[in-house]
Amino acid sequence: MCDASRPKPELFGASNEARVADRLFRFYERPMARLHTVAIEARNQADDPSSPVERFGTNEPLLLDAGVALAPWQIAYKTYGELNATRSNAVLVCHALTGDQHVASPHPVTGKPGWWETMVGPGLPLDTNRFFVICANVVGGCMGTTGPASTNPATGRPWGVDFPVVTIRDMVRAQALLLDRLGIDSLFCVIGGSMGGMQVLQWAASYPERVFAAMPIATGARHSAQNIAFHEVGRQAVMADPDWRGGRYLEEGVRPRKGLAVARMGAHITYLSEAALHRKFGRRYQDRDAPTFTFDADFQIESYLRYQGITFVERFDANSYLYLTRAMDYFDLAADYGGVLARAFAGTKTRFCVISFTSDWLFPTAESRAVVHALNAAGASVGFVEIESDKGHDAFLLDEPAMFAAARGFIDAAARARGIA
Amino acid sequence: MCDASRPKPELFGASNEARVADRLFRFYERPMARLHTVAIEARNQADDPSSPVERFGTNEPLLLDAGVALAPWQIAYKTYGELNATRSNAVLVCHALTGDQHVASPHPVTGKPGWWETMVGPGLPLDTNRFFVICANVVGGCMGTTGPASTNPATGRPWGVDFPVVTIRDMVRAQALLLDRLGIDSLFCVIGGSMGGMQVLQWAASYPERVFAAMPIATGARHSAQNIAFHEVGRQAVMADPDWRGGRYLEEGVRPRKGLAVARMGAHITYLSEAALHRKFGRRYQDRDAPTFTFDADFQIESYLRYQGITFVERFDANSYLYLTRAMDYFDLAADYGGVLARAFAGTKTRFCVISFTSDWLFPTAESRAVVHALNAAGASVGFVEIESDKGHDAFLLDEPAMFAAARGFIDAAARARGIA
Repeated sequence: MCDASRPKPELFGASNEARVADRLFRFYERPMARLHTVAIEARNQADDPSSPVERFGTNEPLLLDAGVALAPWQIAYKTYGELNATRSNAVLVCHALTGDQHVASPHPVTGKPGWWETMVGPGLPLDTNRFFVICANVVGGCMGTTGPASTNPATGRPWGVDFPVVTIRDMVRAQALLLDRLGIDSLFCVIGGSMGGMQVLQWAASYPERVFAAMPIATGARHSAQNIAFHEVGRQAVMADPDWRGGRYLEEGVRPRKGLAVARMGAHITYLSEAALHRKFGRRYQDRDAPTFTFDADFQIESYLRYQGITFVERFDANSYLYLTRAMDYFDLAADYGGVLARAFAGTKTRFCVISFTSDWLFPTAESRAVVHALNAAGASVGFVEIESDKGHDAFLLDEPAMFAAARGFIDAAARARGIA
Repeated sequence: MCDASRPKPELFGASNEARVADRLFRFYERPMARLHTVAIEARNQADDPSSPVERFGTNEPLLLDAGVALAPWQIAYKTYGELNATRSNAVLVCHALTGDQHVASPHPVTGKPGWWETMVGPGLPLDTNRFFVICANVVGGCMGTTGPASTNPATGRPWGVDFPVVTIRDMVRAQALLLDRLGIDSLFCVIGGSMGGMQVLQWAASYPERVFAAMPIATGARHSAQNIAFHEVGRQAVMADPDWRGGRYLEEGVRPRKGLAVARMGAHITYLSEAALHRKFGRRYQDRDAPTFTFDADFQIESYLRYQGITFVERFDANSYLYLTRAMDYFDLAADYGGVLARAFAGTKTRFCVISFTSDWLFPTAESRAVVHALNAAGASVGFVEIESDKGHDAFLLDEPAMFAAARGFIDAAARARGIA
């Protein structure tokens, strides 16, 4: 006698997403119905962002590490506060892998608050009453700076995987050209976390005379083997999706939603910590008292991850995800200086504040400490704060009073030294 | 002017696998050409394993936690050494998620050595000159014990996702029925790592009178939120593959190779440690001196992971992967005893040796320590060894002299107490 139950595995299919969404709606109190309009709006942002954009013509190429002269190209950015008369109060915020220029104002696609509203605003550590805060979408991104989702002017079609592979240094080069265009010679401060922190370090190395103060957070001077490994899994998940279409999905009117969702789910685990996951979810069930003996999202952590995957794919371009993870993997600042990181900062006059978090296992404190040692070896002015937190890598995006205090103290002291009121 | 390079992303497609394989052949010195015959052979093992098998009829059901009476069913196993006259020298080895019964002899599908040839054999810690070593493929597996790749006798087609969801306790129940059939009332020792260690703990809880000694390695009494999260990503990767076909791929003559490969790649990272990855691969390039500015496997770690994915899918059933990860997620031994783990071991006479590894972040030492505390609270005889190693979770499968020494010491002392020559 065969008396077997019939488990009903739950997939990333349209109907199942609706089911997941239904359940999640109650749990997360966020409507999912507008996801499809979100996706259309996201697509429009690539060429015509709803933030200011500077366009560079065929005679103003962006010279990439890949040996490519990218032209024409454009860079989208947001600013907060006012540039002072001496042009000495500009702060450049560098965003992370899935961030963008919408730091402290609602996101034009999702309608969610800016990703660093806790740090940037009147009276906050990056006080917009005192500073002129700029954030630009990185090259390779999908929010208005030229990237794989942008239209390739040579063909009239989206670049897709014909877009050249970019590096962290390319992102910084593009930002420097934007600042030239805006008439800003020197930055009071460059600040950012994770991939943003990589850009901060690259800024200090490439343009030391343009950076008065630098604050790299939850980052490192190179991407580790384990981090490359996680990124490679994410890329393979995207490329394994038949709707990736060899990278030409935008032309064909589809998107590799399942693959990108899987990539995001996996990456999201690395942004948190075991302790935070245990505290937040533990082994608690989702809307049930006992296991269902199916492949449904029995556990809250499963629902949470599925939600992270589903919402991400509607606002982010899958090819951008490939390009930006690749840029992070390629980052190895010491390698550009004969393998000696201190040489990247030789003779620097920039003052640094390096911040790490105890539970960050993606960029553990040891990576920050290596940066600090190199800065010490270069004779730089450097402070180092390791913040006790169980929130993992994403702590830099969250409510971390110790980080706010460290940032405020460093920035206020630097502003006094710089003579900013 | 648009002068852009054309990166050629490398996929898990047939042609690309051949390219990857070409490169990997030189690096790993293992032929990939036989992978397709491997896959066919793997398929045959599900119903007709090349190891001994015990078959249970419709009147001998396996009662599952899901409330299903599974019948008929079968269990495939391997033995090494000889059962002594008093039947007192039987050792049960419990295998991990992707392991099987081929502990100490060549794998019938891949031809590779057994997965624990360092532990099981003449003169080794599990000395086959003294002990009768048994290992059975778990229920839900794909190497001859009934699982989703087996033929459902009610339909004549593979079970697929009609197979009931199984638990660690179900695996142990099946093993107990096998031992009944073999006429073995009492085990001298039950030993295993990871999912195998979960079975060891379940054995000690379910059948304390049948277990003289128990050695759970690199395991825990429950699966953590982070571990459930990683498993859920793997399952979604499998189910996102259109060749999964709602779980009916075997009937339709395809297999979700890309999805399972992505799942395996992600899981494999969790079996290692950051330190081991750094030591083994670092940021070294694969067969090149500089980055290619493409999505090729520039880094050795990328090639290595792709290889892990490609080889795994040929020997393992994707649905089995879903079922066994689910069984691990559901494991929470304390929950079966009112939330008090010590009660699982109340009055036990079994002697325990618990082993963990310092760099294991999948089952960190804290999980083993919780087991030891519960055993102490239950008044059990327990030894605890935390082994210094940078090899991560997989250390239990590798050359770890400290583990061999601990196992040998524990087993020899237990054998003396048991009166085994």
